Amino acid sequence: MPIVLAGNNYGKSRVRVVKVTRRADRHDLAELTVNVQFEGDFDAVHTAGDNRAVLPTDTMKNTVNALAKMWSGEQIEEFGCQLARHFLGDNPQVSRVRIEIGQSQWIRMDRYAFTRGSDEMRTAEVVGARGRMEIYSGIENLIVLKTTGSAFEGYKKDRYTTLKETSDRILATALTARWTYRSADVAFGPCWQRAREVILKTFVERKSPSVQQTAYAMGEAVLRAVPDVSEIRLTLPNKHCLLVDLAPFGLDNPNEIFVPTDEPHGLIEVHLTRQI
Amino acid sequence: MPIVLAGNNYGKSRVRVVKVTRRADRHDLAELTVNVQFEGDFDAVHTAGDNRAVLPTDTMKNTVNALAKMWSGEQIEEFGCQLARHFLGDNPQVSRVRIEIGQSQWIRMDRYAFTRGSDEMRTAEVVGARGRMEIYSGIENLIVLKTTGSAFEGYKKDRYTTLKETSDRILATALTARWTYRSADVAFGPCWQRAREVILKTFVERKSPSVQQTAYAMGEAVLRAVPDVSEIRLTLPNKHCLLVDLAPFGLDNPNEIFVPTDEPHGLIEVHLTRQI
Amino acid sequence: MPIVLAGNNYGKSRVRVVKVTRRADRHDLAELTVNVQFEGDFDAVHTAGDNRAVLPTDTMKNTVNALAKMWSGEQIEEFGCQLARHFLGDNPQVSRVRIEIGQSQWIRMDRYAFTRGSDEMRTAEVVGARGRMEIYSGIENLIVLKTTGSAFEGYKKDRYTTLKETSDRILATALTARWTYRSADVAFGPCWQRAREVILKTFVERKSPSVQQTAYAMGEAVLRAVPDVSEIRLTLPNKHCLLVDLAPFGLDNPNEIFVPTDEPHGLIEVHLTRQI
Amino acid sequence: MPIVLAGNNYGKSRVRVVKVTRRADRHDLAELTVNVQFEGDFDAVHTAGDNRAVLPTDTMKNTVNALAKMWSGEQIEEFGCQLARHFLGDNPQVSRVRIEIGQSQWIRMDRYAFTRGSDEMRTAEVVGARGRMEIYSGIENLIVLKTTGSAFEGYKKDRYTTLKETSDRILATALTARWTYRSADVAFGPCWQRAREVILKTFVERKSPSVQQTAYAMGEAVLRAVPDVSEIRLTLPNKHCLLVDLAPFGLDNPNEIFVPTDEPHGLIEVHLTRQI
Repeated sequence: MPIVLAGNNYGKSRVRVVKVTRRADRHDLAELTVNVQFEGDFDAVHTAGDNRAVLPTDTMKNTVNALAKMWSGEQIEEFGCQLARHFLGDNPQVSRVRIEIGQSQWIRMDRYAFTRGSDEMRTAEVVGARGRMEIYSGIENLIVLKTTGSAFEGYKKDRYTTLKETSDRILATALTARWTYRSADVAFGPCWQRAREVILKTFVERKSPSVQQTAYAMGEAVLRAVPDVSEIRLTLPNKHCLLVDLAPFGLDNPNEIFVPTDEPHGLIEVHLTRQI
Repeated sequence: MPIVLAGNNYGKSRVRVVKVTRRADRHDLAELTVNVQFEGDFDAVHTAGDNRAVLPTDTMKNTVNALAKMWSGEQIEEFGCQLARHFLGDNPQVSRVRIEIGQSQWIRMDRYAFTRGSDEMRTAEVVGARGRMEIYSGIENLIVLKTTGSAFEGYKKDRYTTLKETSDRILATALTARWTYRSADVAFGPCWQRAREVILKTFVERKSPSVQQTAYAMGEAVLRAVPDVSEIRLTLPNKHCLLVDLAPFGLDNPNEIFVPTDEPHGLIEVHLTRQI
Repeated sequence: MPIVLAGNNYGKSRVRVVKVTRRADRHDLAELTVNVQFEGDFDAVHTAGDNRAVLPTDTMKNTVNALAKMWSGEQIEEFGCQLARHFLGDNPQVSRVRIEIGQSQWIRMDRYAFTRGSDEMRTAEVVGARGRMEIYSGIENLIVLKTTGSAFEGYKKDRYTTLKETSDRILATALTARWTYRSADVAFGPCWQRAREVILKTFVERKSPSVQQTAYAMGEAVLRAVPDVSEIRLTLPNKHCLLVDLAPFGLDNPNEIFVPTDEPHGLIEVHLTRQI
Repeated sequence: MPIVLAGNNYGKSRVRVVKVTRRADRHDLAELTVNVQFEGDFDAVHTAGDNRAVLPTDTMKNTVNALAKMWSGEQIEEFGCQLARHFLGDNPQVSRVRIEIGQSQWIRMDRYAFTRGSDEMRTAEVVGARGRMEIYSGIENLIVLKTTGSAFEGYKKDRYTTLKETSDRILATALTARWTYRSADVAFGPCWQRAREVILKTFVERKSPSVQQTAYAMGEAVLRAVPDVSEIRLTLPNKHCLLVDLAPFGLDNPNEIFVPTDEPHGLIEVHLTRQI
């Protein structure tokens, strides 16, 4: 049976760029990490070592820098579209371009000075093909914790179950969300802000009977609050804080002392859409 | 438009376990990191907070420990199948179980003593559904470098291209490979060893006109050498070593001094199958 | 020449604990990572395998949990002193105890809910010996950036110098500071807040002719603003943002597009005291 | 009380360089990470913003590249001395130069091809002052594990002790060692190999009543086996593998199933010298 090249793609990952927009009264700052990935007619590259179709990944990096100069410095979704359009326009051998952008948090202290925010990132992904552009926005690593209002009870038990039911536990997660839109003509900034707000509001205000229900409620809240969002995926690791047994030391521990653990961790994923 | 739960899954990630098999003349050691993920009928968990269908992720962790006791300590693909069968058998509400296992490298020094190998991992993935079991094997983070026998020439240039063509460069990558089999009844250990061998042999012996061609040649070599493998995917980051310009210091640099960089990096992916 | 045990110490590192203080109207949250290290009369442990003097490091971890229950949840310097006194009191074989505590940032969203701050940590170190207690406070990983007001000119040049002088560059650092006090009877919280404030104010307001001068100015500002601080050490990595050359693409780059790099990086350390 | 600059130093950290030595029959490969740090007369830099004494850290990086070209590619201690001498010779304002070098492991597959070894590093540190050069060699992150031959019994217990005594446990560590020499005129390569060998032999062959005793025995073995070594420090984290309780599942666990944990971890340090 002959061997077939069933698929391939290539690109540049972790292209980092800082853009300073020098306004009259202040400087704005955007720090991005960009991935560029091409699919298309690259069979001869693989099978014959013929590089004529290959735009170097170093050129992708240069292009990110050059187009960053021309970008407004505002919505990363727009920068993603500009990159995708550029690469598709100049490269007929490419059928699909994927641009992933992560924006780090900087908090303004002054007109020209900033301090680093949390490790949360605003993300965008643009998948450009001939005649079609898909745009995704998202949040990565939004870490939240609540000290009460979370339970886990009434679950299935089998011979390997030792976990005790609890009506009051710490709930902590490092949320990732990613959603898409009903059209490409939306106000990305306000949508992102509103989606983040209702995710946080749901986390804070809703009682949690499980991480699953909380994840679902967050997705539902975004779809309700942001009409331009057509579907959303959420990933919530359960960053367990385990209650410490202080009884051997003659101390009770009414939900006061916990040990946070990184591994193992629960992992919950949901995908919500609107019914068509 | 009503909101729909279009998909969901949950499980436990990064369950770490060390199994010591205590033989008469020596101890064997296996260090694994296991992920377990369930799909199935969990709508009520998400929408109604009804946890009756949820086997706790803590129970998944306990199950990994208990079944590790009964496992032979040899092929991780078999351990994956044992876990998948156990979870499907006991949980009618689950339609699909995904087990991912990574095995760390320990090198024997003595009958009871070991030293850590590289960060390369042997990996297995088992996706068990009702009446069907898919098994994948793989390698993660196999780092290799060659100091010659790699070129990159004749590529496409545009207005943002500054990269110089080279007939002799360092080639370095941290390879990930993942393949599947024609049947579930194969000798996983020998297949894995043979696949790894021909990947390395291809890297060492073949001239590289591009990372793409090298990736393709590796996949082709595995499909040729291991008849039980039916398809393979390879991911090769290009871990660039940049030639340092020593001319300002009155020194030439005939491919002797390089600066290795982690970001940005090229990323090349290929997928090869057999023609049906 | 006989061999001598010239020094030794042992302890437990990375003991993580979360303390929730459940007040009537809100919960307070403290997440700490604690290191405990003992020095003392442990020669027989090393040379003869006699463990009678060794308090297990597992017991140190338990002690951190138990004393965390009794701690107020407020100043980490006080928790360090409580731990040091406990260990010295119960362990006559110990001559010196070192307690290091790092407190992670959680930002209150609500009475019971928090979101993670930056990776900056508040730190404390207590070194307790018979009849003496040294207390250090500090900051780790305070990341700041300014887009102007930083120059680097007039430096020494040799045959290996290629760096161009600049009157306007980005200045970015991830600051670590550590100071001690004139006495143990100070208000740790207000001192820490004030020290952090004047470090940030110096960064924002002072023109920087070098990272060195900025580091010195920060130390001077703390010693001036916080009379209880008797000496301070600051470590400032220079997190370089390199101006990208866009000229090959027909674009100028008046301090707008930079590439941030993690390695290599400059590293500047200063130590300031008051004259006696 | 006036404020005094009590100390300061500056330099470049994480300068990465790959040197390929192109011999007739094979290429040799050295991958280094170098830190350079200066102390000296830099008061005016800090207090007056006068940069005339400051050799830029960028020049330090260039110097590492240039001197790497001239280095033999063999002993990193010699490269450290060459760098220290160069910097001291050209910079009368510098009183002390510290050079730290870490060498990554590459394992030869072929004349021109290599695969990555473990994360263990060979290290060297050279501290050069006017008329004096201190040379240290070392090992970082040598990870070893034995499945038997390690006990921990007869230790001190207090009210917070819950650890059970064990006559047979897994012992695992990620060893760091650092030693110095009786003179600068030693064969660094053979000394390093021999020191590493006897450390491993001690780990494998000696029964361990505690990590402390094992650490001491390793130091003693190096001082006995390598006469040129005058003193040695060893740091051994106790990378705990905890025995899993399988009794709730009706399974016994005679030292077969363990969970490896990264935090918290024990930390043991010893310093051995020769009696004078």
